[in-house]
Amino acid sequence: MTKVAVLGSGSWGTAFANVVADAGAAEVVVQGRRASVVEAIDARNENPDYFPGIALNPALRATTDPAEALFGADVVVIAVPSQTLRANLTAWAPLVPRHAIVVSLMKGIEVGTSCRMSEVIAQVLQLPEGQIAVVSGPNLAREIAEREPATAVVACVDEDAATRLQHICKSAYFRPYTNTDVVGAEVGGAVKNVIALAVGVAVGMGFGDNAKASLITRGLAETVRLAVSLGADEHTLAGLAGLGDLVATCSSPLSRNRTFGEKLGTGMTLAEVIAETRQTAEGVKSSESILALARANGVDMPITEAVVGMMHHELPPAEALLAFMSRSSKPERYGV
Amino acid sequence: MTKVAVLGSGSWGTAFANVVADAGAAEVVVQGRRASVVEAIDARNENPDYFPGIALNPALRATTDPAEALFGADVVVIAVPSQTLRANLTAWAPLVPRHAIVVSLMKGIEVGTSCRMSEVIAQVLQLPEGQIAVVSGPNLAREIAEREPATAVVACVDEDAATRLQHICKSAYFRPYTNTDVVGAEVGGAVKNVIALAVGVAVGMGFGDNAKASLITRGLAETVRLAVSLGADEHTLAGLAGLGDLVATCSSPLSRNRTFGEKLGTGMTLAEVIAETRQTAEGVKSSESILALARANGVDMPITEAVVGMMHHELPPAEALLAFMSRSSKPERYGV
Repeated sequence: MTKVAVLGSGSWGTAFANVVADAGAAEVVVQGRRASVVEAIDARNENPDYFPGIALNPALRATTDPAEALFGADVVVIAVPSQTLRANLTAWAPLVPRHAIVVSLMKGIEVGTSCRMSEVIAQVLQLPEGQIAVVSGPNLAREIAEREPATAVVACVDEDAATRLQHICKSAYFRPYTNTDVVGAEVGGAVKNVIALAVGVAVGMGFGDNAKASLITRGLAETVRLAVSLGADEHTLAGLAGLGDLVATCSSPLSRNRTFGEKLGTGMTLAEVIAETRQTAEGVKSSESILALARANGVDMPITEAVVGMMHHELPPAEALLAFMSRSSKPERYGV
Repeated sequence: MTKVAVLGSGSWGTAFANVVADAGAAEVVVQGRRASVVEAIDARNENPDYFPGIALNPALRATTDPAEALFGADVVVIAVPSQTLRANLTAWAPLVPRHAIVVSLMKGIEVGTSCRMSEVIAQVLQLPEGQIAVVSGPNLAREIAEREPATAVVACVDEDAATRLQHICKSAYFRPYTNTDVVGAEVGGAVKNVIALAVGVAVGMGFGDNAKASLITRGLAETVRLAVSLGADEHTLAGLAGLGDLVATCSSPLSRNRTFGEKLGTGMTLAEVIAETRQTAEGVKSSESILALARANGVDMPITEAVVGMMHHELPPAEALLAFMSRSSKPERYGV
């Protein structure tokens, strides 16, 4: 039987491992750092930190030992915080079977290098592109843990690998589509966190659904511009890993990034929001590396620029959003 | 001074007339059928039917007399129910000044003929394309009446005409972009009502934000397919008149179409929903003409098909949505 190792017992790692267990086509082991969480998943089929009260699949096993999780794994799924990937993976590298397909569930861009997660994986593990895949889409982890219906994209330049992954995670409630555009899927996933911060700020300031929809639309347009400049197909961004993920994140009170922005929009200072937020909003960190990537490629990203201003340079939200609404009149242009 | 006649004192007609009055570059007269509403707008700056308590611009005038509204009008804005346009316009035709630019605010496809609103206008008034424009976008009328920020698209094949219209409706809170793709703007506006019905049903059935975002994404994909088959530019659909309008409508409890679907999703019968809903949900009517248009052009529109089934052939919502979620696995493909 196919063995799947999921590295990371956070919300998305746990929920995705449970999808694979529910799909029933592979055995799954989750590796996590915190012994109490790992024990609870293994013994009580529950992740009390993220999904208290939700019964995970009893077949799901868990361990704190990366060697145990990775031994004989055919598929290695990674779900650690984006900015810790390189350090974590460097430690795990000797344990990763050479034939394994490595799947990223992470949605960020590395600070300092502006690398996508699949690029970090390729560099650290010295793997060919055809062995690296990305799963992305409108995938709020809690809803998936609750087995509510969702769709996703499994992206890999090797279509056969994508199809094999699709098979091991397709369940009654989780519907994955294959795609060969890894760049598009990753850029869509990373930038949506930044746009969700902006939408959160707008919601916190009391803006309505028209303004929110405008921000989402213009936000997707700047995502497309960046992705295409990096070699992506713009249709990927119009799909589940672009538009779909963006809309789910921006609509949901479950989104960390949207919630972070919302608090800022209501008038809290950045320091207050950071102090109050237990989990890190990935978009706060990635916004700077995304803007660096945009500048290096000559791409205009006004919303990302406003978010970097608000998150890193104390730009007041009112000023940032009003600037966005009052630029000079012009024709509507999208994409490239 | 430019004179603008707005035919129709419903929610969007009133809110748009108020935008033009607030913009201050034209005089505006609203024409409505109900004397009480017209009197209230004219004398008290209020539309008690749709926006009780909201102070409209005092410069806004109103009349029940189409001849008075249309006399000397440079711009004629039409905001009547889509399915009544041909009959209304046939009666008004002799009164419409020949040089006037005619603007459609309507979002529907005519039942029987499958004509877009601008096509009905061209046929009835015998006007050239360059004199017919469309305003569309994420424009929930109540938010605009409340002067909350919004963006929109002014589409006309004559770019100069679009720019002139942009000038007369640009205000501090309403930001119009020009576009020359009338077909794209109209198809986006009409189909979004149908997708909003489907999203409403999903919400009513208790589906979460992942499923909602999936429906929006796949709904936009089928909108793009239809629009492109009719000659539109797919980028228009990725913009404010496509994605933007769709997201606003599907997010908002103010949307008639979403609300109509939601009631159906909670288990009410079609007859019960119709009896309870005071206003007509445009998507219910347009869904059939949109599906006819799709079939005539060989375009696959599975969500629209499900909506027609639910709205016209008593297809149970659970069956329609489960069919959508359980189709065979495949690669993700979008657009054309």
